[in-house]
Amino acid sequence: MIGIFDSGVGGMTVARAVEQLLPTYQIVYFGDLARTPYGSKSPETITAYSIENIEFLLSRGAKVIIIACNSAASVASDTLRRHFRVPIFEVISPAVKQAMTVTTTGRIGVIGTRATIRSNVYERTFKEMAPDLRIFSQSCPLLVPLVEEGWLSKQETKMILRRYLQPLRQEQIDTLVLGCTHYPLLAGLIRQRLGRGRVNLVDSSIAVAESLKSYLESTPEIAPLAHDPSLNRYYVSDVTSAAIDIARKIFGRRIDLIKV
Amino acid sequence: MIGIFDSGVGGMTVARAVEQLLPTYQIVYFGDLARTPYGSKSPETITAYSIENIEFLLSRGAKVIIIACNSAASVASDTLRRHFRVPIFEVISPAVKQAMTVTTTGRIGVIGTRATIRSNVYERTFKEMAPDLRIFSQSCPLLVPLVEEGWLSKQETKMILRRYLQPLRQEQIDTLVLGCTHYPLLAGLIRQRLGRGRVNLVDSSIAVAESLKSYLESTPEIAPLAHDPSLNRYYVSDVTSAAIDIARKIFGRRIDLIKV
Repeated sequence: MIGIFDSGVGGMTVARAVEQLLPTYQIVYFGDLARTPYGSKSPETITAYSIENIEFLLSRGAKVIIIACNSAASVASDTLRRHFRVPIFEVISPAVKQAMTVTTTGRIGVIGTRATIRSNVYERTFKEMAPDLRIFSQSCPLLVPLVEEGWLSKQETKMILRRYLQPLRQEQIDTLVLGCTHYPLLAGLIRQRLGRGRVNLVDSSIAVAESLKSYLESTPEIAPLAHDPSLNRYYVSDVTSAAIDIARKIFGRRIDLIKV
Repeated sequence: MIGIFDSGVGGMTVARAVEQLLPTYQIVYFGDLARTPYGSKSPETITAYSIENIEFLLSRGAKVIIIACNSAASVASDTLRRHFRVPIFEVISPAVKQAMTVTTTGRIGVIGTRATIRSNVYERTFKEMAPDLRIFSQSCPLLVPLVEEGWLSKQETKMILRRYLQPLRQEQIDTLVLGCTHYPLLAGLIRQRLGRGRVNLVDSSIAVAESLKSYLESTPEIAPLAHDPSLNRYYVSDVTSAAIDIARKIFGRRIDLIKV
């Protein structure tokens, strides 16, 4: 069983990617809506919350964990890997690997919450794996509230995106990493703004699902169950109507959010 | 000692108003930054958090409580008053009373977070106290993130305010209740948008401080201490640099945030 957690419902873009790529595995998801968002909280607080979330997923039978929250992945991955014995995937290294593969000019942009960008985790990961690339980062703290508000194509959203993306355009990036699980919902507007066909978008939710797939193919001891997506469980620490709406937008169908 | 809590640092506008109006009383503040914002969470979760916050303030010696968070005041005041024996003030009724006093046309607007507006608490309170007034409500979920981002005069903030305030302009309100403690920081832009001098703004932080002052004047058993604002304590459940910035903006001086 694949355990996925996020600070809210944004991580469901990861759950959807896993469902599509690994349909025979069961998913247990936890969205910490009662304490969302993580992006504006301190590293110590984010780490403490992440430990609780993983303990919950393990108690529900998870054998592999995906940290679907970029903020948590940025500041807590190393601590969490020392703390737990199960394999822990996160959304950052798979996205970095994919960006390395698709860039041709070597000029890569990264957008994320303030916590993610401040942590410099993308810069560090790129430096370790491909020191020659030029990385340009931009924090975009208003995008999550705009997505959660459902303003996916409003003029204000376009203006705010323009302000955030302008420095990256000037740097002439050819690849942009969407360093937050909410951002795929804005992919259309982002592409429009950066010039369709001119910039590759790296969606970290797809990148991590592909990386998990490779791992599972070489790990027969974590066997898939019979194919039955109705067994997938979506737990949350709070239920709001906005969360139900976003979950529906992400999956294209109604998702039952179970409050724990 | 006056205990004040909020989901974050916005409630410091209330602390500042109390400090100015009641300088001889000591303040103990708690900002629940680790779980902010409350506005997008469910009533059950907001109530549970509020109980914990008040227990903390009582443990630090508070004799009177102000719920500086509109979302908490909206959904939890009645439960909290049944649960605790100390006097509990909130930001809603004082603002409603002040709006009743200043309106001449009887057409009043209220803006707040989604939780506050959905709770209908302002409509209900106005209905009880002045059933003849016409109340027009508008939820403005993006204003708190904009304030916390420090975008207090950016073009995008103006556009979003225009979208939010347009329906209230059309209703020709003559009074607007700022139903969230973050909003006084946008008072200038809001006045500009509604036409300076044409609409009275009711700042709930000042209204509640005035209401508390009247109560204390008639309650000699809660005696003031010697005047020493340096004894005021500002506790938070998480410290972020954005919070430190907003606190400085609100008070016009550096505020030490003590993490608990």
